[in-house]
Amino acid sequence: MTDLPRRVDEAADLVTVALDELLPRADGPESRLTEAMRYAALGPGKRLRTYFALETGRMLGVDETYVLRAACALECIHAYSLVHDDLPCMDDDDMRRGHPTVHVAYDEMTAVLAGDALQSAAFEILAHPDTHPDGAVRAELVARLAGAAGARGMVGGQMIDMLGVREDLGGVARMQRLKTGALIACAFELPLVMAHAQDAERHALLAFAHDLGLAYQIVDDLLDAEGDAAAMGKAAGKDAAAGKTTFVTLLGVEAARERLGLLKTQTKSHLDPFGPRAEFLRDSVDFVLERRH
Amino acid sequence: MTDLPRRVDEAADLVTVALDELLPRADGPESRLTEAMRYAALGPGKRLRTYFALETGRMLGVDETYVLRAACALECIHAYSLVHDDLPCMDDDDMRRGHPTVHVAYDEMTAVLAGDALQSAAFEILAHPDTHPDGAVRAELVARLAGAAGARGMVGGQMIDMLGVREDLGGVARMQRLKTGALIACAFELPLVMAHAQDAERHALLAFAHDLGLAYQIVDDLLDAEGDAAAMGKAAGKDAAAGKTTFVTLLGVEAARERLGLLKTQTKSHLDPFGPRAEFLRDSVDFVLERRH
Repeated sequence: MTDLPRRVDEAADLVTVALDELLPRADGPESRLTEAMRYAALGPGKRLRTYFALETGRMLGVDETYVLRAACALECIHAYSLVHDDLPCMDDDDMRRGHPTVHVAYDEMTAVLAGDALQSAAFEILAHPDTHPDGAVRAELVARLAGAAGARGMVGGQMIDMLGVREDLGGVARMQRLKTGALIACAFELPLVMAHAQDAERHALLAFAHDLGLAYQIVDDLLDAEGDAAAMGKAAGKDAAAGKTTFVTLLGVEAARERLGLLKTQTKSHLDPFGPRAEFLRDSVDFVLERRH
Repeated sequence: MTDLPRRVDEAADLVTVALDELLPRADGPESRLTEAMRYAALGPGKRLRTYFALETGRMLGVDETYVLRAACALECIHAYSLVHDDLPCMDDDDMRRGHPTVHVAYDEMTAVLAGDALQSAAFEILAHPDTHPDGAVRAELVARLAGAAGARGMVGGQMIDMLGVREDLGGVARMQRLKTGALIACAFELPLVMAHAQDAERHALLAFAHDLGLAYQIVDDLLDAEGDAAAMGKAAGKDAAAGKTTFVTLLGVEAARERLGLLKTQTKSHLDPFGPRAEFLRDSVDFVLERRH
């Protein structure tokens, strides 16, 4: 458990260096666009999807060069979604991770376009022969990520979140599963595709991803309700102020904490079939969920 | 030449029916998103990229089922780009093809998300095994379309257009090549990839696409300068009013018309190596460029 923070940091550094290499640069007037893309994708971030993708790839014996490129694609999609979510017509956030959001640092038009181009970049990276020697694998990686990112995944979840239409726990859970769960699942799904993994491994890891995503959302809701803005680098208490129903507004803080505890145990149990191979994934559950921001 | 209008209409109908089948539907609250995607992608449109993709596929002997799916992906990217270009922070257009734009018919947030999900849908469609039996071909289709759509293509061109930084014909031509040329080229590129075409065929068709895209832009600029708003279904004279430099503001109407005439001849000449096989592509140059809106 002791070197987990180091492993997480190393994964973040690896993907930042790789993204810096892969993201387009421009000499012409469109350099404003490519700079905004870099600002969004290379800035500070926890890079948890990358960490989970790399650990999964190691566990399944996939070439790390390949997994790192898949992680870059995941981070491009994640970064684009944050840029668009922060727009004035969406969450209207001025700050993210302690820095001005893209539409504040640049402008709204550049933020829309930088998000759009980051999405294209994700699929361009995945489809490139350097990502995997087998074309059918590359195509499947694209299909999985596009499915997770689109109307049946992340963007669909963001629509539900924006509409604020969810009265019960089932509705909140479904929103979370689409909005953030689908992309978290991809951190496991893409290395699984690369490893030509068997169904049993796939189901176990996707169940792990599912419960981890849910637990992560409960932590997020708890932080929003209790966290302090300075540590989070963004405004706290926004959900309640916006009248949003979350796990915490529906369950209350105590019951949400209790559910989180049970969920942690359940999350780790999905890794039992992997035995000691899953050591780092197992240990990372507590580490990831004990975050303060 | 006589049945060209019918062929163009048939291509438009084919892709509209196929897109209606392929675009996601939703029962939950995210149905607002999937409806907006359909509003954007299934509404009236010339579908010229589809027409060119289908004719190219026929000429090269590619299975039409495959080409039609590639055309659906192209139309998704085209539709998403129009939705985002029309946003208040971009061109701020209320009407498109005689109908309210997506952010007017729905709202800004829904327009951003519908565009985002249409982009994902494009890559999900291309990467699906039904698009081509060879995985390496599917991955290459994705790489080509993503490259044409992103910062080095369409979105980069839109950034340049929005910044309005182009003083000379070279700058206007470069903007056009990125903003619209890259996606028009894909209408030829995707069937070429599917056909495993030789370099000579590829170069000839991409030169055709290049000149056709340039000619199309000159027609567009002429229509903006001279067209009437009713026929175009959108405001005319916007470029000059916005202080934008175009082929027409730089050359004047007469010289622009003259250049267009020369370009038409040059465009068709690229098809010479194909002989009679290219009959429909050759005839469509005049048809496409003699549009009134």
